[in-house]
Amino acid sequence: MPDRFLKACRRQPVDCTPVWLMRQAGRYLREYSEIRSKATFLTMCKTPELAAEVTILPVDKLGVDAAILFSDILLPMEAMGIELEFVEGKGPIIHNPIRDRLSVDALAVMDPEEEVPFVMETIRIVRRHLEGRVSLIGFSGAPFTLASYLVEGGHSRNYIYTKSMIFQEPLTYHALMDKLTKVVISYLNAQIRAGVQAIQIFDTWVECLSPGDYREYVMPYTKRVIDGLDRGAGNLKDVPLIHYARGGAMLLESMKEAGGDVIGIDWRIDLDVAWERLGYDVAIQGNLDPTVLFAPPEEIERRVKDILNRVGNRPGHIFNLGHGVLPQTPVERVIFVVEAVHKHSKRQ
Amino acid sequence: MPDRFLKACRRQPVDCTPVWLMRQAGRYLREYSEIRSKATFLTMCKTPELAAEVTILPVDKLGVDAAILFSDILLPMEAMGIELEFVEGKGPIIHNPIRDRLSVDALAVMDPEEEVPFVMETIRIVRRHLEGRVSLIGFSGAPFTLASYLVEGGHSRNYIYTKSMIFQEPLTYHALMDKLTKVVISYLNAQIRAGVQAIQIFDTWVECLSPGDYREYVMPYTKRVIDGLDRGAGNLKDVPLIHYARGGAMLLESMKEAGGDVIGIDWRIDLDVAWERLGYDVAIQGNLDPTVLFAPPEEIERRVKDILNRVGNRPGHIFNLGHGVLPQTPVERVIFVVEAVHKHSKRQ
Repeated sequence: MPDRFLKACRRQPVDCTPVWLMRQAGRYLREYSEIRSKATFLTMCKTPELAAEVTILPVDKLGVDAAILFSDILLPMEAMGIELEFVEGKGPIIHNPIRDRLSVDALAVMDPEEEVPFVMETIRIVRRHLEGRVSLIGFSGAPFTLASYLVEGGHSRNYIYTKSMIFQEPLTYHALMDKLTKVVISYLNAQIRAGVQAIQIFDTWVECLSPGDYREYVMPYTKRVIDGLDRGAGNLKDVPLIHYARGGAMLLESMKEAGGDVIGIDWRIDLDVAWERLGYDVAIQGNLDPTVLFAPPEEIERRVKDILNRVGNRPGHIFNLGHGVLPQTPVERVIFVVEAVHKHSKRQ
Repeated sequence: MPDRFLKACRRQPVDCTPVWLMRQAGRYLREYSEIRSKATFLTMCKTPELAAEVTILPVDKLGVDAAILFSDILLPMEAMGIELEFVEGKGPIIHNPIRDRLSVDALAVMDPEEEVPFVMETIRIVRRHLEGRVSLIGFSGAPFTLASYLVEGGHSRNYIYTKSMIFQEPLTYHALMDKLTKVVISYLNAQIRAGVQAIQIFDTWVECLSPGDYREYVMPYTKRVIDGLDRGAGNLKDVPLIHYARGGAMLLESMKEAGGDVIGIDWRIDLDVAWERLGYDVAIQGNLDPTVLFAPPEEIERRVKDILNRVGNRPGHIFNLGHGVLPQTPVERVIFVVEAVHKHSKRQ
């Protein structure tokens, strides 16, 4: 059932601009923190009842137009054989980083329905609860972003290990990307079969790459992922795909070439400039700076209006932040931004 | 005496493309590490004989076309009243971050010749040693990059404190930027009087800002700095200025408006694309990805040639990395890149 969010993904007219927020289920929500205080992050992700509860939370609390599966992009990597831990304040740590051919060859091409059944079960529970209200977005990390986590062993400043692998052992890099591409395709197809109504691919860390390296080492794999999904036939796919990158201002044309019905941008480029460069045959998602949620309401409102004005009446805009909601964000400002988007984009 | 480097800054023809590397005096050099093992980083910066030795080292060792003063952008901040420490592997830590109006008002507008005389003495020593060989570049952090260090208390991921100050206490932010602008102007003018032959302004952390916020909160102060320098009269200043930003792909036009004879770019934009957008009435510096120095020589050579081909015969290109040399870089690759630039850009 096409709703406001799905319509915008398909560039169809809507009653007002749909809005959801990356990391909308997170620590800034008291209810989230309460659940989190009783379970580790990984336990939350792996317990369908908890993951479903947290997925639905922002829909009730914020009035957003889409829910996004509560999970982590590294979760399917655990089933491939990495030793994953989430360390408070440090993010993910991979205890066995993948830096040579043997380690790549040892990674399992896992079957998502066998290995991460809790993800599919979460999707089914959420769909039952949400039916008739808002759409559920499934997601995966793009192969490069997953590869960079695996090779670096966690967050990185300069991506030395990943780029050294590209430069010194390109065959190892390509073998890793090939394996990740296969896993991402089967993981996302399993999510679609379980019932997600849209997909977002996160290629968060491509911002470390030159435009040439993106085209040579990343784009072909992202394209293979997108081409490999069973999203329905025809131009208007049943399951629209959002292709997001952080810091992708100079990669937009290549991202579009890789694919996606919607291109997701961060805040380091003006939305109208980005959309003009992309062309109006794709939809666009973005692009408020997440730190603006620390500003007073008048300032948030001014900036929401500025983004909406850059769009004008053109259909195909999904409002979002340029990156995830920060944990310290005041919840009332998050509610405020959702209301402001709806209020100031109401069509006659 | 105008040499290859100064000529390129002025967009005059040169015999081959000049090259220097940001952070060319650093831990990747054995000789540097030996000196560093006997003195703290701050002691090295504050001891003119040591700072001068380290400044000159890469000229002898690498054959680069310019030396850059060995110092740190936060050094003059210490004289303003911040408690600065360099922690191994963590970078600078400021023990009294500047987050309210009282702290801003307490910062001293220091006199560089009184407070950091060792910097001027280092410049005089280096000039005596280098006379007739290559030029010496002086530098400072731009006001925003300095402000973000002061407010965050060190490196930052999301710049929440800095942006919160901009949004919640704009008057405090402007008071801080005003003070830093004055200090940067007097600091750079003191360097010019002491003998530096070019200036680079580092605005490393503007990459966290939207184009609109850069124009409103940063550009006017950088412009005031550049306009406030005594660099000689006329279009071809005696002391050229390089205006560098990391991640500034969408800020280029505004950076040019703020000023600079040369705009320094990182590797996340193709050099020819950047120069076309800037216009050919400024010179350009860049733009090899620093991690390419971990690649085999053939690959480094291929990428050096690619950048040189994007320039063609147009005068006004200074070869550099897109950011500093990484500490783990093999020294022979650094030497190799300098040779490759000279070899493949030789004019008939």
